[in-house]
Amino acid sequence: MSGPDDDRFDEFDWIEQDLKPLAEGAPEALGLVDDAAVIPARPGFDLVISKDAIVEGVHFLPDDPLDLVARKLLRVNLSDLAAKGAAPYGYFLAVAWPSDTTRADRRAFTEGLKADQAAFGLRLMGGDTVSTPGPFTASLTILGWIPTGALVRRDAARAGDVVLVSGTIGDGGLGLRAAQGTLPTLSDDEQLALADRYRLPRPRLGLGPALRVGAHASADVSDGLIADAGRIAAASGVRLTIDLDRTPLSASAKHWLDGQPDRLAGLIDLATAGDDYEIICTTPPDSVAPLRSAAALLGFELTEIGAVTDGVGVRAVYRGAETPITRAGYRHG
Amino acid sequence: MSGPDDDRFDEFDWIEQDLKPLAEGAPEALGLVDDAAVIPARPGFDLVISKDAIVEGVHFLPDDPLDLVARKLLRVNLSDLAAKGAAPYGYFLAVAWPSDTTRADRRAFTEGLKADQAAFGLRLMGGDTVSTPGPFTASLTILGWIPTGALVRRDAARAGDVVLVSGTIGDGGLGLRAAQGTLPTLSDDEQLALADRYRLPRPRLGLGPALRVGAHASADVSDGLIADAGRIAAASGVRLTIDLDRTPLSASAKHWLDGQPDRLAGLIDLATAGDDYEIICTTPPDSVAPLRSAAALLGFELTEIGAVTDGVGVRAVYRGAETPITRAGYRHG
Repeated sequence: MSGPDDDRFDEFDWIEQDLKPLAEGAPEALGLVDDAAVIPARPGFDLVISKDAIVEGVHFLPDDPLDLVARKLLRVNLSDLAAKGAAPYGYFLAVAWPSDTTRADRRAFTEGLKADQAAFGLRLMGGDTVSTPGPFTASLTILGWIPTGALVRRDAARAGDVVLVSGTIGDGGLGLRAAQGTLPTLSDDEQLALADRYRLPRPRLGLGPALRVGAHASADVSDGLIADAGRIAAASGVRLTIDLDRTPLSASAKHWLDGQPDRLAGLIDLATAGDDYEIICTTPPDSVAPLRSAAALLGFELTEIGAVTDGVGVRAVYRGAETPITRAGYRHG
Repeated sequence: MSGPDDDRFDEFDWIEQDLKPLAEGAPEALGLVDDAAVIPARPGFDLVISKDAIVEGVHFLPDDPLDLVARKLLRVNLSDLAAKGAAPYGYFLAVAWPSDTTRADRRAFTEGLKADQAAFGLRLMGGDTVSTPGPFTASLTILGWIPTGALVRRDAARAGDVVLVSGTIGDGGLGLRAAQGTLPTLSDDEQLALADRYRLPRPRLGLGPALRVGAHASADVSDGLIADAGRIAAASGVRLTIDLDRTPLSASAKHWLDGQPDRLAGLIDLATAGDDYEIICTTPPDSVAPLRSAAALLGFELTEIGAVTDGVGVRAVYRGAETPITRAGYRHG
């Protein structure tokens, strides 16, 4: 962000010119001219609501393009809906713009929202735009629908369940390092692909129907595989054992891991790095095959990485032996 | 806010110790341990949602007590529900805490939420807490219920309507100056009372049922009487004429106005100052009496301050003559 607003393009102009078109087709938004939005009850469905905030320099890099920042903000919230088995519906946005914001900054942010609204079938329904003497800060409240009572909770894992995780783990964390230029051992192509994973999560939305049928508990992996497994364990009153050898890795992550002097330390790095936005779920053994088939149809894998037993907390295993993990997951703070 | 976190009391501790109790009794919140909250459909009701953000140094003063900041954030959002005729239900909160936040800061903010949750019958249902290198920033997404289709919109004013406003106008703006110590002509008691009006708005929630029956259009007065009247006019495609002589004023505001060299300029100051959080509504003439009776039962007045006609925009009248207003209302930005 460089230079002050040209043409005195301020918050109100942004709403008029950029945001109102994002609410078109959503009668709930009342044209963004009212104090509130109104959501009609949908018989047979519950509304699922999640809210996440991002701060420049904390959750994204100051030179990250603002269209990608907007898309990441939407996708981080969509990932929460995905883990709960819900379908996207709409969102509310609050943005605090720094004083040196340009019209191009606002436009870029809008374009990111527009692209992902179309991709995920969402509409802007309301929010607030303010100025700040500090860094760019935004929060997004996302709404989704789920059949009544069908939300896949975090606290319902049971002893005897299998632990599954979608996609690959650790790419987000490696991608942050690639974006910061601190992954010199990988090729440029690998670094670009990883940085893209950091900047643009891929929420696993299509899995909802299968999750609602087959999973006992589910959560999204945002703070690291081990940390989020630990939260399922704590909420459910069970133990999750994660087999680090079975952590699904991308080709780039495997390449990075091969270059590490200590393979276990490298695996722990990946399993505690955060920003994966994959789904971790627990499921009875006979639901594993149908869930994996559903994922395969969507173009990604569900990998069996552990088991649920009586007990407390999360336990990591490497080459058959329990291994202590001190860094339980990246805390954005 | 002074000094860093003592005892390493961080965002996660804040959630555990302070926020989780605020979600007790709300099954929708899933104990704040899940990725999302789940809101069951309520047959016969629409959900009303509004979202507002505040930034330290922009929307409140850096030395404002954090319990009052929390209560103001809740009340600013409650005022939106009040204007729409909706009843409070729950809220989602995102807070970005500066690095020098103390445990006492977090506790004070929590205590403010707790007090107003109890006062207004609200429960915390979810949100996010992050750190920021910048100023304290927070956004709140509020949820309310309204009978299906009964939302009182901003865009439904009609020619022939009377314009009413609740309570008194200008106290919030004078209160800001009092809090900044720039109102030396008033007594200490008057300054304290006005500063309290700035720091602690009083959302006019009880009026909902009467508004839903009697009002055509309604909005809350947050950016100034003239600005918000202008938005009703623009949204509804009509003209609102506001009689500045009839602007309802508190005893302190009258006292302040009496000390102004130019009475009209003083009235315009009050009518464009913002932070009133009163309700402006338009209503057919035969609904004025029942609406005023409903307000009287709640302990405040509804004052007739103008009329709706065919035309465009807002028009201010003083002593029978139209008067131009260049400053259309305070823009927080």
